[in-house]
Amino acid sequence: MTDSSTNMRLKLPIVCFILEIILIILFGVLVEYDHDTDARDFHNMSHHDYENDFYYRYPSFQDVHVMIFIGFGFLMTFLQRYGFSSVGFNFLIAAFSLQWATLMQGFFHGMHGGKIHIGVESMINADFCTGSVLISFGAVLGKTSPIQLLIMAMFEVTLFSVNEYILLSVLGTKDAGGSMTIHTFGAYFGLMVTRVLYRPNLDKSKHRNSSVYHSDLFAMIGTIYLWMFWPSFNSAVTAHGDDQHRTAMNTYYSLAACTMSSYAMSALTAHDGKLDMVHIQNAALAGGVAAGTAGEMMLTPFGSMIVGFLAGIISVLGYKYLTPVLEEKLKIQDTCGVNNLHGMPGILGAIVGAVTAAVATKDVYGEGLHDVFPLVAEGKREASVQGGIQAVSLAVTLGIALIGGLIVGFILKLPVFGAPPDTICFEDNIYWEVKEYKRETTQKKIDKE
Amino acid sequence: MTDSSTNMRLKLPIVCFILEIILIILFGVLVEYDHDTDARDFHNMSHHDYENDFYYRYPSFQDVHVMIFIGFGFLMTFLQRYGFSSVGFNFLIAAFSLQWATLMQGFFHGMHGGKIHIGVESMINADFCTGSVLISFGAVLGKTSPIQLLIMAMFEVTLFSVNEYILLSVLGTKDAGGSMTIHTFGAYFGLMVTRVLYRPNLDKSKHRNSSVYHSDLFAMIGTIYLWMFWPSFNSAVTAHGDDQHRTAMNTYYSLAACTMSSYAMSALTAHDGKLDMVHIQNAALAGGVAAGTAGEMMLTPFGSMIVGFLAGIISVLGYKYLTPVLEEKLKIQDTCGVNNLHGMPGILGAIVGAVTAAVATKDVYGEGLHDVFPLVAEGKREASVQGGIQAVSLAVTLGIALIGGLIVGFILKLPVFGAPPDTICFEDNIYWEVKEYKRETTQKKIDKE
Amino acid sequence: MTDSSTNMRLKLPIVCFILEIILIILFGVLVEYDHDTDARDFHNMSHHDYENDFYYRYPSFQDVHVMIFIGFGFLMTFLQRYGFSSVGFNFLIAAFSLQWATLMQGFFHGMHGGKIHIGVESMINADFCTGSVLISFGAVLGKTSPIQLLIMAMFEVTLFSVNEYILLSVLGTKDAGGSMTIHTFGAYFGLMVTRVLYRPNLDKSKHRNSSVYHSDLFAMIGTIYLWMFWPSFNSAVTAHGDDQHRTAMNTYYSLAACTMSSYAMSALTAHDGKLDMVHIQNAALAGGVAAGTAGEMMLTPFGSMIVGFLAGIISVLGYKYLTPVLEEKLKIQDTCGVNNLHGMPGILGAIVGAVTAAVATKDVYGEGLHDVFPLVAEGKREASVQGGIQAVSLAVTLGIALIGGLIVGFILKLPVFGAPPDTICFEDNIYWEVKEYKRETTQKKIDKE
Repeated sequence: MTDSSTNMRLKLPIVCFILEIILIILFGVLVEYDHDTDARDFHNMSHHDYENDFYYRYPSFQDVHVMIFIGFGFLMTFLQRYGFSSVGFNFLIAAFSLQWATLMQGFFHGMHGGKIHIGVESMINADFCTGSVLISFGAVLGKTSPIQLLIMAMFEVTLFSVNEYILLSVLGTKDAGGSMTIHTFGAYFGLMVTRVLYRPNLDKSKHRNSSVYHSDLFAMIGTIYLWMFWPSFNSAVTAHGDDQHRTAMNTYYSLAACTMSSYAMSALTAHDGKLDMVHIQNAALAGGVAAGTAGEMMLTPFGSMIVGFLAGIISVLGYKYLTPVLEEKLKIQDTCGVNNLHGMPGILGAIVGAVTAAVATKDVYGEGLHDVFPLVAEGKREASVQGGIQAVSLAVTLGIALIGGLIVGFILKLPVFGAPPDTICFEDNIYWEVKEYKRETTQKKIDKE
Repeated sequence: MTDSSTNMRLKLPIVCFILEIILIILFGVLVEYDHDTDARDFHNMSHHDYENDFYYRYPSFQDVHVMIFIGFGFLMTFLQRYGFSSVGFNFLIAAFSLQWATLMQGFFHGMHGGKIHIGVESMINADFCTGSVLISFGAVLGKTSPIQLLIMAMFEVTLFSVNEYILLSVLGTKDAGGSMTIHTFGAYFGLMVTRVLYRPNLDKSKHRNSSVYHSDLFAMIGTIYLWMFWPSFNSAVTAHGDDQHRTAMNTYYSLAACTMSSYAMSALTAHDGKLDMVHIQNAALAGGVAAGTAGEMMLTPFGSMIVGFLAGIISVLGYKYLTPVLEEKLKIQDTCGVNNLHGMPGILGAIVGAVTAAVATKDVYGEGLHDVFPLVAEGKREASVQGGIQAVSLAVTLGIALIGGLIVGFILKLPVFGAPPDTICFEDNIYWEVKEYKRETTQKKIDKE
Repeated sequence: MTDSSTNMRLKLPIVCFILEIILIILFGVLVEYDHDTDARDFHNMSHHDYENDFYYRYPSFQDVHVMIFIGFGFLMTFLQRYGFSSVGFNFLIAAFSLQWATLMQGFFHGMHGGKIHIGVESMINADFCTGSVLISFGAVLGKTSPIQLLIMAMFEVTLFSVNEYILLSVLGTKDAGGSMTIHTFGAYFGLMVTRVLYRPNLDKSKHRNSSVYHSDLFAMIGTIYLWMFWPSFNSAVTAHGDDQHRTAMNTYYSLAACTMSSYAMSALTAHDGKLDMVHIQNAALAGGVAAGTAGEMMLTPFGSMIVGFLAGIISVLGYKYLTPVLEEKLKIQDTCGVNNLHGMPGILGAIVGAVTAAVATKDVYGEGLHDVFPLVAEGKREASVQGGIQAVSLAVTLGIALIGGLIVGFILKLPVFGAPPDTICFEDNIYWEVKEYKRETTQKKIDKE
């Protein structure tokens, strides 16, 4: 089961070392502590310690961190023989991406006199960008080498930062929980990559592209952590005070409603009225994605529940009816169904955000309008214009994601990155030392003798 | 293994959709953002952002949230073939209960001008109420359909809110961590339900009513999370400042002492002096339950440790000697032994709370007496009377739980909810698509040909 | 598989009960609520609730708590037949150690008028001390009875507190994240204990001293939680404000860089260029250990990344080349390779801390120098002297750990503690009721009949 082309002995160390050394040099040249992490700066003015941004955001950061490393990592362990790679490659590309994202995001919107200033907010943003890469990872899961994933991460982080810059800084779009910047971008980028990497003979690995009992339970660890901490995700970088509070609560109710509709739709559509683990593991999370843009707005708990309810329905229907069509007709092999969990619910979230923005009034938001829609509050923009800009932002995001994915897909096709052959996809043993195999092989040798 | 009566294809979607649509309508009519989540209200007065209740309670909320979804969910995965249902039904009924609890608790003690005001504290309270439902779930685990569970949750949340209202609002009882309102109520409600649902032929499913090696390890994830975050649970809704701080610390020491006595008693009572996973998974948590009422009081770490120490002993003895008796003599089939983990330790906690309240003095509490016993501090009630009221509250809780469980048990007996037959209890395959079974069946077909 | 000498029926209960009763008595005599947990004291002066230390430190405490109970517990479940013991004994000795540490640490540096004052900071410190014991547990994993572990914990906590007192209170050393006090101490104490307990015939249990597929996945839960929450660990007891903030961020980047170098080195050194789970589970964490001392200093993100990068390389090289040598030449059987994860990276962290301290200037730290190096800020000590003291502290720590481990090792050799025989090491069934074994035995009986 070993093939010289997939042997990582030299390739992976070289790529990792080069990337990390570049990162270290760039950090040395460009990165500085921000006001709240620098010993001299923070003590320079009279502050109360509790005003340090650490206390406003660090608990949210840690919840987001859990989603990135445990949530995404374990969600993908559902495959029977791909648990090491799911958690392990998730770990590797996330560790790389968060460093690279610090630089890219800092470069685009965090420069202060030629230096990138970092603190807990930049850490959250770096984790967010990483989340987008991990969504794309879900689309290509089981069919890529760790080097392909690192290369993909490098380009995707860069394009993510460009798109985020256009939306947040140029257009003045609001997207605190990233329905567009994170979910829509990550999903359609990944779908385009997997389209370009289409494998016509993937059915040779079909027997491994399914779950076993305990792998589904491991995946539920990922699902539940993503579900629980999504309120922290959507509220992590909103304005202090009522904004963080409201965003978390809206997301909480959106997710609860989404879970109800996901179970309903799963029983309705699945074989014999039995619940399907794929739906529960994924569709129940769509409510968090769909509340990503409007969560910080005065969406009301009632509105949040409607959004979550719809997201769950759309997501299950996607898994049941759309995924097979995408594979057969469009040649998109979407291992985790990211179109159903992140793609369509992300678009829903963008639309809900545009509508909610368009109807925002000073009457409803009071002075809080400055936090949520500063340009509207300052009279520089009508609410309806803000709504229109939000809709345009969705189109921009889709455009950059699809074109970016197309280009990066072709780069990843170069036959030097050690991709697995069609016959050994969804298999840990190709990149990991798996003890059982060794033992079995030894046993066979003994039996022969 | 499929039976038309347990087929959920139409029943489950109908129940879920109806319930969720009712929830959405009621939220639309009744629910509003509270002062700390509303954009206009929070900016209406001069506040510092750090005074928003979000920063006092959201980290605790997230810990409680983890206990509800990971803690309870995985604790129940110990059964060999019921992991999907344990985590999955836990997920479903919790998602429903927290929405319904928001309404019921708001209706009973959160109305402001005809509207229910919600924020992080109501989210914690909704999770607490959900916890009570999940305790009852533990008693009926493996023997109920998801529809029965949803119906049970609907009634139990309602009765929980009535009991909570009588205790906290009418009687002025203190029970921040819910020894009475959550644990005692949930346990005896569930025990009565399982009594009414008694299955004389349950031994036909006996071979599935036990654990395997890895299912016990999954369950330990649940145990450890419950154990770690119990300090957050008990302190989540106590007064700000020293109260939250003290409650968390008391619970921490109670749990540590409880773990020591649980291990001791497990080795003492179990076969061959070997430790029994059932005891470790459950009894070690009893210290958290027993510190639920008195945790916020000046119980002292020393007092907390004694309480935890006793709770561990009682709990292991319950598992070893009482559970078999309850099943044989009283026909109570308590799958998870909730009487030992929540029932008896809850009663212990209520008694400890009554005694600690009765001896409270201004000398010990200083001005802090207003936080813990406002009626005593204001001179409206003697400390000894407060102690008596606490004891009465336990009786009220037991009464409502037992009568409520009796009635709800009979409702659940109606033969329309798709309960599993006696021969297929403790089995995921009846409500879930389990891949292995499909494969085995296919294999058998191939073998026949 | 049962042996009267390893039977815990009386031994374990007696030890647990005696220890816990002593703890309860000492807590009753010596321990009091501190200013921020006492109802009267906290209300005695005019405080804002948000100034209570609970809000500064409790989220960090809970992260540390997760590392201790889930992180260490599950990290050690990698062995195929030792999952119950890994999580379960971890749970037992941690629950004991945190109580005992409260007393020992309080005795050495928290006495106020003859009383030990406790609150969230003492809870974190108790968890830290517990972490050190669990590191030593990693060295002797699979070869010790729970009684041996409790005895070891009792002595180790005591010696830890002595060493910590000498470093922090006598010498004025800075070591917020415990590169020296926790990691170096725990590792070399444990290595010396396992040296004294050397088992020449341990290869009789060799077939159990390895992982299986799912046990490695359980271990990854431990790894990822340790990795994610290490920023909270290192920053949990640093000064409020920029100090906590900076420490968390430095650790975050150190860990990210460490993960990159660990993957690189694993592919480079392992068989066929395949990644080795042992490296990923352990070496990727070395960056947290190595940032333990200097993390709170103005190490810069750039410096942190270099430290993490080196730590990952050292750690993988240790697993690959040093561990076999230690076992063969020095007779040190280090089950989890704590020398590679905690020992050498701890020494690296101490050296980095000494160098960073030596170059500290008022120019870089501003008024923040008082937080990080109070003696230097007050002019009582040159920065270079502080650096020298840091280096001396490492030597002191190594000395106390090695001599302490030597003595405690000989105590544990007494043949009354129920240690497992060489043939049944790394095996749960000796101390735990394992259901499968029972079933298999029953099956064999049936087959015979």
